[in-house]
Amino acid sequence: MANEIKIQVKTTDTKPTETSYFLDLAERMRSVCGDCTKIYDALGEHPWLSVWLPLKVTDSVLRGIAQVCFANNTISGLLILIGLFVGDVRAGGGAVLCSIIAIATAKFTHQDDGAIRAGLTNFSPVLVGTVTASLYPLFFTKPFNGDIWFYMMMTTVFSVCVSIGLGVLLSKHNLPGYTLPFNISTSIIFICLRAKGYAEPLQGADTAANDEINVTQGVNVTSLDDLHVESSNIQWDQVWLGTLLTVGQVYAVESIACSILILIGLVLCSPMIAAASYLGGLLATFTALAVSSAPYTLVYAGVWGYNGFLSAACITFFMVPHPKMIAMAAINAIFTSCLQAAIVPVFSANNLPVFTYPFCLSSLLFLALTTSAGMGSQRVANPTYPEHHLALSLEKSEEVND
Amino acid sequence: MANEIKIQVKTTDTKPTETSYFLDLAERMRSVCGDCTKIYDALGEHPWLSVWLPLKVTDSVLRGIAQVCFANNTISGLLILIGLFVGDVRAGGGAVLCSIIAIATAKFTHQDDGAIRAGLTNFSPVLVGTVTASLYPLFFTKPFNGDIWFYMMMTTVFSVCVSIGLGVLLSKHNLPGYTLPFNISTSIIFICLRAKGYAEPLQGADTAANDEINVTQGVNVTSLDDLHVESSNIQWDQVWLGTLLTVGQVYAVESIACSILILIGLVLCSPMIAAASYLGGLLATFTALAVSSAPYTLVYAGVWGYNGFLSAACITFFMVPHPKMIAMAAINAIFTSCLQAAIVPVFSANNLPVFTYPFCLSSLLFLALTTSAGMGSQRVANPTYPEHHLALSLEKSEEVND
Amino acid sequence: MANEIKIQVKTTDTKPTETSYFLDLAERMRSVCGDCTKIYDALGEHPWLSVWLPLKVTDSVLRGIAQVCFANNTISGLLILIGLFVGDVRAGGGAVLCSIIAIATAKFTHQDDGAIRAGLTNFSPVLVGTVTASLYPLFFTKPFNGDIWFYMMMTTVFSVCVSIGLGVLLSKHNLPGYTLPFNISTSIIFICLRAKGYAEPLQGADTAANDEINVTQGVNVTSLDDLHVESSNIQWDQVWLGTLLTVGQVYAVESIACSILILIGLVLCSPMIAAASYLGGLLATFTALAVSSAPYTLVYAGVWGYNGFLSAACITFFMVPHPKMIAMAAINAIFTSCLQAAIVPVFSANNLPVFTYPFCLSSLLFLALTTSAGMGSQRVANPTYPEHHLALSLEKSEEVND
Repeated sequence: MANEIKIQVKTTDTKPTETSYFLDLAERMRSVCGDCTKIYDALGEHPWLSVWLPLKVTDSVLRGIAQVCFANNTISGLLILIGLFVGDVRAGGGAVLCSIIAIATAKFTHQDDGAIRAGLTNFSPVLVGTVTASLYPLFFTKPFNGDIWFYMMMTTVFSVCVSIGLGVLLSKHNLPGYTLPFNISTSIIFICLRAKGYAEPLQGADTAANDEINVTQGVNVTSLDDLHVESSNIQWDQVWLGTLLTVGQVYAVESIACSILILIGLVLCSPMIAAASYLGGLLATFTALAVSSAPYTLVYAGVWGYNGFLSAACITFFMVPHPKMIAMAAINAIFTSCLQAAIVPVFSANNLPVFTYPFCLSSLLFLALTTSAGMGSQRVANPTYPEHHLALSLEKSEEVND
Repeated sequence: MANEIKIQVKTTDTKPTETSYFLDLAERMRSVCGDCTKIYDALGEHPWLSVWLPLKVTDSVLRGIAQVCFANNTISGLLILIGLFVGDVRAGGGAVLCSIIAIATAKFTHQDDGAIRAGLTNFSPVLVGTVTASLYPLFFTKPFNGDIWFYMMMTTVFSVCVSIGLGVLLSKHNLPGYTLPFNISTSIIFICLRAKGYAEPLQGADTAANDEINVTQGVNVTSLDDLHVESSNIQWDQVWLGTLLTVGQVYAVESIACSILILIGLVLCSPMIAAASYLGGLLATFTALAVSSAPYTLVYAGVWGYNGFLSAACITFFMVPHPKMIAMAAINAIFTSCLQAAIVPVFSANNLPVFTYPFCLSSLLFLALTTSAGMGSQRVANPTYPEHHLALSLEKSEEVND
Repeated sequence: MANEIKIQVKTTDTKPTETSYFLDLAERMRSVCGDCTKIYDALGEHPWLSVWLPLKVTDSVLRGIAQVCFANNTISGLLILIGLFVGDVRAGGGAVLCSIIAIATAKFTHQDDGAIRAGLTNFSPVLVGTVTASLYPLFFTKPFNGDIWFYMMMTTVFSVCVSIGLGVLLSKHNLPGYTLPFNISTSIIFICLRAKGYAEPLQGADTAANDEINVTQGVNVTSLDDLHVESSNIQWDQVWLGTLLTVGQVYAVESIACSILILIGLVLCSPMIAAASYLGGLLATFTALAVSSAPYTLVYAGVWGYNGFLSAACITFFMVPHPKMIAMAAINAIFTSCLQAAIVPVFSANNLPVFTYPFCLSSLLFLALTTSAGMGSQRVANPTYPEHHLALSLEKSEEVND
């Protein structure tokens, strides 16, 4: 707690400085942009068991969808959900279904009401829904039927339980669990589905080596058309396209339209997060060229960028913006890609995608790093959105100077 | 510590209510049933280096054997030990030998005397003894000779050391280490024995695939007769038999007689633990049918249930009984089976059984979960046995109402 | 903090007892031997950005090299560096280059100045340099060119970041991160280099089985001449030679001359650490004969001893010397070798050496163990060197007796 800046909204503004103007703007923008307090506060007045239930659930579902990218904003969530449906109808459906199950589980286990309303209890389940729906056809051979929806719901309940348990453990270190609950529960279920016979059993190393090119190196594979362009030369236009596909790959959806809708949603919430995320994905993608070999099909598909995308967003969200923090966000994104390269062989041996493990593991270390005494301890106590954190921090440092 | 209910035995009983009658009963039963305080207190008065040494050691050994199933009771331990000898003489001998080595190591490292007397320092070594003795012939090809007993003793010393070290680390999170010390030390020694040449070296993937059916999917394999009935249809009578074999498989002993003796021992200590454990094993066994494929030989052998058995027992032992806790114990048992399905491929690649890793990992998360603020914080500070916890909790809530 | 002995240098010496004479000697020796305070204090007076920069950096680099073996001494570092250059010029160069990059990174991230000056921020990078330079030709097929130096520098930056992050997490448990940052960052980069095509891709299990004999079982392989002597009989003279090679293998340098120079450097700093380390390496080497199979080529090369070497040194450095601590250091060294045997199959499946993972994991547990209440809590608060710790402890216990 000593490592945090206590953020208090000052009401007394004796002289309108440039700084206080900036804070004032950030406060006013919050109502719709930023963390969208207008809807949050309005719905907070009503109990869950009332006519407001559908609206409250909808708000929590949409916020949870955006919270995957650290955006606590209903409208961002709506734009992203539209993007998911545009990219892959099943992924969109999975996000909604798993979010609703998660809200019910969170209420059953008496989680903090503010956290449920802000979608914090259901962003891992969002990924359970989109990633399972999106990747099932790539990793399994049996048709996608009702059973899979049942397994997804079971995974959602597990992910909420894992989330609470991990939260208790990590809170001792003042660290969030990120999407680790999604990673843990979904990787368990993917292996269970294989064990249950939803895919051909893993064969000897010889055939596995052949499969590796197609499926196992990352989260997603591109269409056969893309495979035609495979060569040892780097297709730079494809790389740049890959940096954009990175955005949708956060939800395991490979679609330019989806990526653009997500980015618009993020800009609405926080241009800083949008910029930092995209640049993180860019850095991670370029790092991938240094730590993987041709053919770079998965780089072009954005599979090597989405972990770095989240890693950069994470540092930007939890720390007060500062040049040193930007450097740390960049190193985190690069390290994330190296870590991804390192765990791919182990995961692919079990025919698993890497999910967002690289982001989670790397960012746990780097958030611990940035909260160490030497780094100025610019950890935000109650995160809202980066522009607001910066405005409060500037205001505070001005007060100290007075 | 804030998450715990301070349990204090009230001596002033002004009016005999139904609740205080229940607590009174629970207190009186404790002397022989429950945590068997009569023997514990009587032996506690005498120093170790006295004529009481053999009796003190015997009590600690027997309690340690029962503590594997969270039963701190000398008589339960005796019944279980008889069961072990009935099922597999070597497993019984291993339990006794390793327990004695463990008590000596615990005294050498100055462990808490109360913990040693309650068998808490030697329940992991009990499993080192029974599991190594029982599984050696299934995983290794060289005959079981004196060397193996030496390795078992070395493993016991390691497990006590690991136990103390892990205890220091986990105590910061107010979590017990369960049987992780057994898992860590025994899996290390199993790989060492293979490296030393006690088994054929692991071969290429082709042959490994064939072996998998026989040995590697779980802890134990059944006799060849059972393999004859293998088919894709589920043999329901065999599944029900498997839920009973689950009990003995906690000690890696596959024997109906042993299972029944263990259950009797548990009922003597706490009918609640006995019921919760058996139902946990049942749930885990049925979950296994959803996360593994035919032939279900290992399900019929009880190999898929013992982790869930322990998972349900664990929540029942550490938390005050409550409907929400029952739900959590059930989810824990189901999750344990899924986790077992997930780690089997990794362990079998190194020709290792899964030991009780699934129980330990899952229950660490779920005990953290159940102690989170939202869950009512019904963690028991100084566990005795569930019926006693319940009586104290009822008494306490009545006092508050007065 | 409760588990630590507060060490304060007493200036009032009323009566010169034998104990106070010993402490006096230990204090006087410190100026050049021990933690070499003369140079440390002299350089501490000057800022980094001054004409003293080259000397300050040199001191930090040399101390960091010796800190790998828990010796905070400039002259020890110089002797070891000479040893590295004698054994493998590239390893020596790698140590210096990575140390300098590490100091710059540590300053950039505002690490504690005393820690930087004592070489604590660059001992992991020293290993990044020596181990990568030394093992690259054994694990990769492409020539060692400028690219590799670039990867080494990147790995160094990562290792400093990992070190700070891990430090924050482990400080909650009052545990140091040892060389884990080196292990994590270097193992990631080794897999990245393979993924980038610096080595032949891993082939099917059949050929892997053949390779295993040559390369994958440990850190290093000996020349082909040594393979000629392979037989199922243990060559005892080779084993004894292996216990000496163990010393250089800490830095992945297999050279008698280098080993002897390191030992001389350690004796200069602390004869106790030198003796404990060598005996730890000896125990670990002999344990390897019980947990691995012929041919014992890697035992003869010292590959099975360097982890135990560090494990024994670690307990000797962090705990006040005491017979029970010696027993714990010995068990730690033996356990380390068993752990090494256990993780070799997993690491070799990914064609990775075990680095110093066995030492780190085992010693984390054993340092937690030795700080548990039962063990007398003889953890040193501000470690200098063991002879000094002992003198202070004797002085303190004498005061209590007065």
